Amino acid sequence: ALRGFATPDAAEAAFYEAFQRRDLDAMMAVWADGDVACIHPMTIPLTGRGAVRAGWRSIFDAAGRFGIQVEMLARQQTGDVVIHYVKEYLTIGDEPAPRPPILATNVYRRADDGWRIWLHHGSPVQAGEARPNIVH
Amino acid sequence: ALRGFATPDAAEAAFYEAFQRRDLDAMMAVWADGDVACIHPMTIPLTGRGAVRAGWRSIFDAAGRFGIQVEMLARQQTGDVVIHYVKEYLTIGDEPAPRPPILATNVYRRADDGWRIWLHHGSPVQAGEARPNIVH
Repeated sequence: ALRGFATPDAAEAAFYEAFQRRDLDAMMAVWADGDVACIHPMTIPLTGRGAVRAGWRSIFDAAGRFGIQVEMLARQQTGDVVIHYVKEYLTIGDEPAPRPPILATNVYRRADDGWRIWLHHGSPVQAGEARPNIVH
Repeated sequence: ALRGFATPDAAEAAFYEAFQRRDLDAMMAVWADGDVACIHPMTIPLTGRGAVRAGWRSIFDAAGRFGIQVEMLARQQTGDVVIHYVKEYLTIGDEPAPRPPILATNVYRRADDGWRIWLHHGSPVQAGEARPNIVH
């Protein structure tokens, strides 16, 4: 069985380090056993470790390299589940500047061996946008 | 204190019924006490019941009426937390057809008085899109 992390923060740091390094094994070590889900921007959920792994492999294969800056927006906890809300600023390949920010909801759960990620939901977000605009 | 629901499914049904009816009090009765977060498409999280309420009021004020169809994609549970992944098809005002689908992650938590919603994260999704396209 995989080993978890001491805190959600430690799991999140490992998640983004694996993302930036395009290290598939390190990435999958951050994901919980059993039910997990990963939602990349504009797509529907990948559910289960196999599909989540295939999704990250596809992303890592497609990009030469990543730079990632993460801004914490908020965190919430209920028992053994913690949710982090972050903005991700990705620089891809040789692009000179980060892409528009991605909003990510990262849900961590605690098992006997520590914290790992249960759900990552990334979605586009308008820069500077804080108000609902669903009906514009 | 507000009263919760017997199941996450019952909470979700009440959530979308309140959404469709633009009933702000019914909507807020579905949300948990304490920390909650609501992410409308393309926006950053509204955190806390006050901000969540203001967000829904803004949406309800802006639309003449809603029609909502919901398609369940997957559901996952860890103890007292359940996550539903759904596609929402909204018809707004007198528009003749639904808008492009919205993917929503709905996180429910169980308290002593039952299930209510902790997080709603809505984001745009490409019709027919199931593969990650973060780097295209």
